[in-house]
Amino acid sequence: MGVLSEGLTQFLIPVSALIGIGFALLQWFLVSRVRVSVSDHPDANNGYRKILIGDAELENGVQSVEVINKCAEIQHAISVGATSFLFTEYRYLTIFMGVFGAIIFLFLGSVKGFSTQSEPCTYNEGNMCKPALANAVFSTVAFLLGALTSVLSGFLGMKIATYANARTTLEARKGIGKAFVTAFRSGAVMGFLLSANGLLVLYIAINLFKLYYGDDWEGLYESITGYGLGGSSMALFGRVGGGIYTKAADVGADLVGKVEHNIPEDDPRNPAVIADNVGDNVGDIAGMGSDLFGSYAESSCAALFVASVSSFGTNHDYTAMSYPLIISSMGIVVCLITTLFATDLFEIKNVSQIEPSLKRQLLISTILMTAGIAIVSFTALPSEFTLYNFGADKVVKNWHLFFCVAIGLWAGLVIGYITEYFTSNAYSPVQDVADSCRTGAATNVIFGLALGYKSVIIPIFAIAVAIYVSFSLAAMYGIAVAALGMLSTIATSLAIDAYGPISDNAGGIAEMAGMRHEIRERTDALDAAGNTTAAIGKGFAIGSAALVSLALFGAYVSRAGVKAVNVMTPKVFIGLIVGAMLPYWFSAMTMKSVGSAALKMVEEVRRQFNTIPGLLEGRAKPDYANCVKISTDASLKEMIPPGALVLLTPLIAGTFFGVETLAGVLAGSLVSGVQVAISASNTGGAWDNAKKYIEAGTTPHAVALGPKGSDAHKAAVIGDTVGDPLKDTSGPSLNILIKLMAVESLVFAPFFAAHGGLIFKLL
Amino acid sequence: MGVLSEGLTQFLIPVSALIGIGFALLQWFLVSRVRVSVSDHPDANNGYRKILIGDAELENGVQSVEVINKCAEIQHAISVGATSFLFTEYRYLTIFMGVFGAIIFLFLGSVKGFSTQSEPCTYNEGNMCKPALANAVFSTVAFLLGALTSVLSGFLGMKIATYANARTTLEARKGIGKAFVTAFRSGAVMGFLLSANGLLVLYIAINLFKLYYGDDWEGLYESITGYGLGGSSMALFGRVGGGIYTKAADVGADLVGKVEHNIPEDDPRNPAVIADNVGDNVGDIAGMGSDLFGSYAESSCAALFVASVSSFGTNHDYTAMSYPLIISSMGIVVCLITTLFATDLFEIKNVSQIEPSLKRQLLISTILMTAGIAIVSFTALPSEFTLYNFGADKVVKNWHLFFCVAIGLWAGLVIGYITEYFTSNAYSPVQDVADSCRTGAATNVIFGLALGYKSVIIPIFAIAVAIYVSFSLAAMYGIAVAALGMLSTIATSLAIDAYGPISDNAGGIAEMAGMRHEIRERTDALDAAGNTTAAIGKGFAIGSAALVSLALFGAYVSRAGVKAVNVMTPKVFIGLIVGAMLPYWFSAMTMKSVGSAALKMVEEVRRQFNTIPGLLEGRAKPDYANCVKISTDASLKEMIPPGALVLLTPLIAGTFFGVETLAGVLAGSLVSGVQVAISASNTGGAWDNAKKYIEAGTTPHAVALGPKGSDAHKAAVIGDTVGDPLKDTSGPSLNILIKLMAVESLVFAPFFAAHGGLIFKLL
Repeated sequence: MGVLSEGLTQFLIPVSALIGIGFALLQWFLVSRVRVSVSDHPDANNGYRKILIGDAELENGVQSVEVINKCAEIQHAISVGATSFLFTEYRYLTIFMGVFGAIIFLFLGSVKGFSTQSEPCTYNEGNMCKPALANAVFSTVAFLLGALTSVLSGFLGMKIATYANARTTLEARKGIGKAFVTAFRSGAVMGFLLSANGLLVLYIAINLFKLYYGDDWEGLYESITGYGLGGSSMALFGRVGGGIYTKAADVGADLVGKVEHNIPEDDPRNPAVIADNVGDNVGDIAGMGSDLFGSYAESSCAALFVASVSSFGTNHDYTAMSYPLIISSMGIVVCLITTLFATDLFEIKNVSQIEPSLKRQLLISTILMTAGIAIVSFTALPSEFTLYNFGADKVVKNWHLFFCVAIGLWAGLVIGYITEYFTSNAYSPVQDVADSCRTGAATNVIFGLALGYKSVIIPIFAIAVAIYVSFSLAAMYGIAVAALGMLSTIATSLAIDAYGPISDNAGGIAEMAGMRHEIRERTDALDAAGNTTAAIGKGFAIGSAALVSLALFGAYVSRAGVKAVNVMTPKVFIGLIVGAMLPYWFSAMTMKSVGSAALKMVEEVRRQFNTIPGLLEGRAKPDYANCVKISTDASLKEMIPPGALVLLTPLIAGTFFGVETLAGVLAGSLVSGVQVAISASNTGGAWDNAKKYIEAGTTPHAVALGPKGSDAHKAAVIGDTVGDPLKDTSGPSLNILIKLMAVESLVFAPFFAAHGGLIFKLL
Repeated sequence: MGVLSEGLTQFLIPVSALIGIGFALLQWFLVSRVRVSVSDHPDANNGYRKILIGDAELENGVQSVEVINKCAEIQHAISVGATSFLFTEYRYLTIFMGVFGAIIFLFLGSVKGFSTQSEPCTYNEGNMCKPALANAVFSTVAFLLGALTSVLSGFLGMKIATYANARTTLEARKGIGKAFVTAFRSGAVMGFLLSANGLLVLYIAINLFKLYYGDDWEGLYESITGYGLGGSSMALFGRVGGGIYTKAADVGADLVGKVEHNIPEDDPRNPAVIADNVGDNVGDIAGMGSDLFGSYAESSCAALFVASVSSFGTNHDYTAMSYPLIISSMGIVVCLITTLFATDLFEIKNVSQIEPSLKRQLLISTILMTAGIAIVSFTALPSEFTLYNFGADKVVKNWHLFFCVAIGLWAGLVIGYITEYFTSNAYSPVQDVADSCRTGAATNVIFGLALGYKSVIIPIFAIAVAIYVSFSLAAMYGIAVAALGMLSTIATSLAIDAYGPISDNAGGIAEMAGMRHEIRERTDALDAAGNTTAAIGKGFAIGSAALVSLALFGAYVSRAGVKAVNVMTPKVFIGLIVGAMLPYWFSAMTMKSVGSAALKMVEEVRRQFNTIPGLLEGRAKPDYANCVKISTDASLKEMIPPGALVLLTPLIAGTFFGVETLAGVLAGSLVSGVQVAISASNTGGAWDNAKKYIEAGTTPHAVALGPKGSDAHKAAVIGDTVGDPLKDTSGPSLNILIKLMAVESLVFAPFFAAHGGLIFKLL
């Protein structure tokens, strides 16, 4: 047994979760002190005067009030649009949750013909475990709980982001440092709220389930995997629906506004501009929040499930069993300290300090967390214990697990840094892409695609090393905790990730409110760093998804009773090659959806420019609502086929072709999907920043390519537009594809093992 | 034993090869009757008058002579350029062959420490086999032989193509039917020469090696696999070098000529135009010839190697052992009959009949070949025999093998037809891509990428079904003969594939010689069909490569003594994920190479337009040679890193990480590379034909998008340019990547099994 007592564990986990939530609320309070509307103050007149005084140096007094009110108005429109879209989306998802919950119950209940008899345990020999029907009920409940938590995570993220965007804009008037802190604090609200909330719900659920399961830990943690499934299936729809929404609007707005009418990005005359800004919040924020929450829930569930059949589980060592949760608790504390470095200890004084500051966040959290892991590993774990490794026993020491978690963590840092190198315009890869715009859009696209392909190499080696080390040291449990290690600093990763779309929106609001050019320059600089951090966030999401999927895959193989996944058997090989094809099928669907929705958007925007007199001259207001409707309708309709592909594949493969073919499908989609996802994200990020590099014109090279409107810049805009669906729709959805198929297979494994492989049985 | 006697087999194989060569020469003779130069006739004056009379209806007499002479001059320039490039390339490759031959000898010789002692056989227990040193010597010889045959195949193909292009142009004056027959006959020369030559050399080599090996069939066919390695390694450099050459010139020519100066494609004022046309011949013709020859050689070698350890080998049933060669012999006869349908039985009367006629070739050859396979299977094979299946014996019947070969053949047809559907502008996918040009280049690129991803689905299912059936029926031997089935109609596939670049060149010559607009329209129609058939050819190359690689992979696993390639072991899994990354790394290199070389080309073309007075007005001649030099230098320099990546990966993985990791690498690169290759080829083909669709303007929809020079057309040109390196450089090279790594692993398997895995041994 480790040094940490069960009682202390039971205390520490919820307390760290509550500390995280408290810290998030504090950050929110600090952000809320930036006042957006003059009229939201109790004493309006007084407030008016105060602003007049406070803002005297910033802008002309009357104009200042106008600008602030304009910001408030735009923020309100974005918030209302995002809320209304999410509520519509959630209505559809409620139906889905009901149907899929019923499927889980029916499939799992049917494993033993809905019998209420207890049965001998699979791993913990000699003991009796709860009936399969109970697992069906509790898996369904866990699924619903995961789904609700995921929805809540996405929704809260969106609320915070739409609350913070105008505030960032207004702070940008005071200087780059203030604006940065506001955007970053808001990101931190989301990061801490999500990670703490995820941990707390999981902790409570385990304790509640335990009231029924008692000593049957095998059944308990098997049911809990439903939590991961719920989390990820909502994330899928969130990412895909939100991704289509945002990119249809973005592409549509750019194609007519920037390319045809030569008006700036986010110009209020553009009818699609509100839809575009709403999209950032429902896609990049809510979708991403659900996604990372899903990864977190799944890696915890995978680790807990594998642990339940180790000697922790059979000896009922509660603290050691809770190792994954304690790691996450430690992560919250570490990220809290890390955040202070960005918000309080260092101050951003100029544009060039933004990216280093964000990068420093990654480095600090990784270094601190390494110490945190060591503490947790040596206090929570017994010095030696046994894991079940596909039939054989494997003896593992506590320092082995330290290395497993730490290598996951550091692999995450490597991925983050490499992503930054390939997507930031401070380095040669993006500058080369920008340079290729000299010869037009075609070479820009060729160079961008090549960059994306190249950016896959080192992350894959990092993942491979992490897998090899953790797999060799502690089998599937090692992989699961390595994934958790990569995600242990999730609060920080989410903070710097959410920072991106908030800055993007802030820039949009600055443009729409007609603020001075320098303000827009500041928000652009924030946004350029945001593109990089968004790519880093996606890198983390993909890297952790790879590890999580492998852990879930291992748990599935073990649960389904597959002895070996031998590529040299026809059943497995066909699964492998078809699985490797799925990311392409999925990407084809999502890219086409964005393309078609964007075409509709283009037609609507053109129609408005042609039929609304005075729109282009700024004398009339566009019909924003129609564009919002097009994005909404397209995303809700188009998210169904890719969602069905992902959710039905494991069910069809498992039921008709059996557990081995399904194992092949999972392995194939994992190894192929990771590549497609990384290259798509980085290509898109690089194109976006190549464009920003030309626009910013901060080096002689960039000046030679620019300014805005030059041929090279036009070529860069085309690349940026192509990259939009790659980096914000298909790329980031792919990591959910691989995770979700794996967790779904794990949940349904008892059914497939009992009744799967119908076709081969018939032949 | 089957009905076919050993003596008859010994007679039939070389005779069919000679028939194939004879038929090729006949077609060449028929093509040569189109006279290109007035002065190459013995009695020049007389000839002059004859042409005047014969061509009187075609063009004005004097102009006709001028045009013919111009054609002859251009053809000569292209031919000289291509020959000179290939000779330069071959000089480099000779060095490579020497070095790599030495590596083979040293690695394989060191397996038993260069001992000359005979040793007990691995499979044929109780017998003595030849020493490992002999295998080292003969593998090296086979490697050199394969390399030379591959080089010869590419070179002959190029010679024929450059001989036929101007003849096709001249025949186009007489009508579309005549031009089609000329281009198709020339393609057939290449198809038959290559397939017959490959068969003959392999047949002779086996018989010569047998003089030494005698009864040791295991050693004999193990050494023969070097032939496949030689063929494919030359093909790699041919495809990559040729691909970079052709696309650097093509992209460079288009970007300045079409986009900046608005002059037509293939305009003689463009300094890069000769390099572009040379490129078609060294890349699409010579590279592709080497590639398909490599596939053919490898699938034959894989089948022979697996067969040598079956009961055929241990019973010394020569006819059954030669089953793969007899299938290929039958293929030559079937393709001969099929060709007559295109050249003699049906006549092309208008443009719309071209594609159906080419498609019919595929269908006819597949139907006839199915009967051919049945005949061969029931006469050459014993009704029942035993295969070694990873340690276990497997009893197989002759009709099982019929199904294995036939399913490979028909899977090839499915892939061909699906490829046609996705890349021909007669169907909605390409028309949708063309339609998306309305909103600019960005949507065109998005739709094109989505199309490529989508086009992967059905081919992968076809390959999966073929693998499942043949694997289940006859293990690895089944896969090998399924690959051979797909390649059995190689003469026809190559004919329709080579037809494409020949028509492309014909169009170029028509433009450069200043022929009438209608002539160019005819050659454009030939060329549009050629884009589709080129995509079909690539589909075949990729599909067969997948099957061949799997067969080679199986042979490797068996030869290296790996019991199971279990994904659930860390060694295999890291191989799998890194293997799946290699196609991206490789594509990044090749795409970037094309991009950089194209940038240099653009600068040179711009420089010439700016510094040569009167060039744009057609009063001065450009400096073609400089552009040829840029393409040559770039391709020779840039082919080395991707070549090294492919050739060194198996050596490094096998030597340092061992046979299991290498098995993972092979499986990963196979399942991932197939997807990247198919989507890249089809995306590129679709973009090219979307552009041609707008240019041709044959439907009201196309007219609305056009004409040449419209915004939609400009967007389509950008898509076409992006597609160039995808479809002609990185895409088609990838199938060589997966085949070559597999055959190399097989050849080096004895070394890896004996000395591999250094790192894990040290740890």
